[in-house]
Amino acid sequence: MTLQPQRTIDELKELRALTGNADGEQRVAWTATWQKGRDWLRAKLDQLPVEVVTDEAGNVWATLRGESEKEMLIGGHMDSVPNGGWLDGCLNVVAGLEVLRRIASEGKPPVTVRLVDWADEEGARFGRSLFGSSAASGTMNPDDLRNLVDKEGIKLTDALAKYNVNLDTAKQSSKQLKNAKAYLELHIEQGPVLESMKLPLGVVLGTFGVERHAIRFVGQSAHAGSTPMNQRRDAFGAAAKLGLEIREIAKRNGGVCTVGRVETKPGIVTAVVGQCDITLDQRHLDAAALATMLQEAKDASERFAAEENVTVSWSRLWQIHPIPFNPELIEMCDAAIMETCGTVHRLPSGPLHDAAEVARAGVPTIMLFVQSLRGLSHAKEEDTKEEHLALCVQALDKLASKTMPWILAR
Amino acid sequence: MTLQPQRTIDELKELRALTGNADGEQRVAWTATWQKGRDWLRAKLDQLPVEVVTDEAGNVWATLRGESEKEMLIGGHMDSVPNGGWLDGCLNVVAGLEVLRRIASEGKPPVTVRLVDWADEEGARFGRSLFGSSAASGTMNPDDLRNLVDKEGIKLTDALAKYNVNLDTAKQSSKQLKNAKAYLELHIEQGPVLESMKLPLGVVLGTFGVERHAIRFVGQSAHAGSTPMNQRRDAFGAAAKLGLEIREIAKRNGGVCTVGRVETKPGIVTAVVGQCDITLDQRHLDAAALATMLQEAKDASERFAAEENVTVSWSRLWQIHPIPFNPELIEMCDAAIMETCGTVHRLPSGPLHDAAEVARAGVPTIMLFVQSLRGLSHAKEEDTKEEHLALCVQALDKLASKTMPWILAR
Repeated sequence: MTLQPQRTIDELKELRALTGNADGEQRVAWTATWQKGRDWLRAKLDQLPVEVVTDEAGNVWATLRGESEKEMLIGGHMDSVPNGGWLDGCLNVVAGLEVLRRIASEGKPPVTVRLVDWADEEGARFGRSLFGSSAASGTMNPDDLRNLVDKEGIKLTDALAKYNVNLDTAKQSSKQLKNAKAYLELHIEQGPVLESMKLPLGVVLGTFGVERHAIRFVGQSAHAGSTPMNQRRDAFGAAAKLGLEIREIAKRNGGVCTVGRVETKPGIVTAVVGQCDITLDQRHLDAAALATMLQEAKDASERFAAEENVTVSWSRLWQIHPIPFNPELIEMCDAAIMETCGTVHRLPSGPLHDAAEVARAGVPTIMLFVQSLRGLSHAKEEDTKEEHLALCVQALDKLASKTMPWILAR
Repeated sequence: MTLQPQRTIDELKELRALTGNADGEQRVAWTATWQKGRDWLRAKLDQLPVEVVTDEAGNVWATLRGESEKEMLIGGHMDSVPNGGWLDGCLNVVAGLEVLRRIASEGKPPVTVRLVDWADEEGARFGRSLFGSSAASGTMNPDDLRNLVDKEGIKLTDALAKYNVNLDTAKQSSKQLKNAKAYLELHIEQGPVLESMKLPLGVVLGTFGVERHAIRFVGQSAHAGSTPMNQRRDAFGAAAKLGLEIREIAKRNGGVCTVGRVETKPGIVTAVVGQCDITLDQRHLDAAALATMLQEAKDASERFAAEENVTVSWSRLWQIHPIPFNPELIEMCDAAIMETCGTVHRLPSGPLHDAAEVARAGVPTIMLFVQSLRGLSHAKEEDTKEEHLALCVQALDKLASKTMPWILAR
């Protein structure tokens, strides 16, 4: 049986009809609609010669035994954000299903092939993303999650219990990775790069490291009418300068920097801003460059604070190191894409993905991206041209074919 | 009887003990504490040969008949903001009371002298400042005020009724101004200029004209990780540029410009700002310069919007023309201050005052400022050195002495 990329597109539409509505996809993890999507997947898997198990973290594994116990994993996630798009997460799984079908149709493969549907990648209900993959990778700290509640006040632990998941045993899912020798993940780009370059597919070099800080400038609130310009201690003046400078820092260092939130106090039309709070998100694929961007932003903030006669203080909100993908898998993925469509681009991933957790667990990992229209995601407008969807299934399949002998040869 | 500036200081402390508490002064207009302050003033006035009337807008007038029906007015306001300072508004009245005492002690003055306590200058309870003076000047539109409520939901019209004030007849108070030939108002500066120049007193040239606008930049919200710097439509980028540029515009044109409020949407740490709303307050004593500052800001906003590939739109929140004070009274006030302390500075008023309304009614008007410590006002920390308070009473008295013959000579 040959690969049928059109079947993937048809199945994605089938899933959308089953678990979406006029506002978008509704497969939020730990809900009935998510389970409906997983049941739909299970029915497809039951037509293949695979064993299906659900691990201690709620991840679903379909295993096609091969000649070797060494495993090639193909992963994705069936869960979506509320009012989500029709591709984020499930494209990976449904395309992986098609590749699994193709491999299974050819008899016992040289290595064991497993399709994994990670539990709760989005963290949409309880605010903690990468639930299942971080349990499997061992980076999850159950105590950090124990008191999470959804907006209705339902506890994460109670929601998990309905799916036979217990926070304190969830990390036992890590045994699923013990024979894993490669992890492949296809995803929509969720950004504008490939579209702007008119390219259907790209190789992902790794996921960005992130430095996320809250920055507070404190000056002196003063009457907008009675305070001359040269006697002001304008907290927004310093924040505006930094907001512009971080863009130069990003360009200079080849990363991205974003001021996403700005708050002013007292925040009234007739008062000079006495306090300005901003958030800064900085990302880079290279740890040293990320550290440089952070230091440059801190230095700039001190300089602007001095110029404006205000104070500045920083507090870290979150941090993660860059996670580079496997260099040999990058080369094989590049080749698979070239064979599929004759052109390729290498790019980092801004968002995190389950692949990052698998890489942190020491499994050689690679991702490929397919173009997103208008860079939109996490919205019902999320879309990708069908011709590009067909190409990405083909590229994933070619990559799987190259990966199996590579695993055996290591 | 000679002028006793120390009595003014003592009386201000007496008033504070009567109507203030640990949080500051509490004489909010149309409340019992305000009335208590007014009753205290009335008891002082009853010791002088004056007639006291309350007009249709709630303004209190104490009239010392002179040889001529032509009137010199000295004004202020007994009302304060909640938790207000001990000088804002009442200094003007209590100093005026002392000047009235001095004039009355010398027999029938050449012109009629009137002390006015304007009703609800602050607008602290219902959000509409200059109530009594705008009724007297005729600029008030009763329909703009008819539906105002305080934060408890009490209607302005009901609060006024308790003080026998009716919105529809309030403007009949304008007849109080029919013989007015000069209006003098003393006020604390409420800004840092005189303190920074180490000067006790200043002549006020007029009140600033104001242009107040809401400005909206709309770009495209996008993922902070997946959107390269050169593909962003960053609404905050444009707002930050304008926030810095309006400061240059102010300096270049000799006015003040303030961005007091900044709001970002979606306003989350992981998203490029898709929409940024800011307020802009611009003030200048010269109408043409104010118009130039507005046009320069609009031009700059268009330029920055184009640079950032975002849109910009403006909507006017409020506008008032500059109100210059009387040139001859400016010269006389300058002389009175020079005679009092040997040094003087001329400056515009950023905040509006009742004097602006009287000037709009066509009465020759002048204000003098006394230094504010640290520029603070509308807070219990508001303060002025007692030696400066004594000087300001003397200067107001000298100005009154110069103004009476000027009125007769016109």
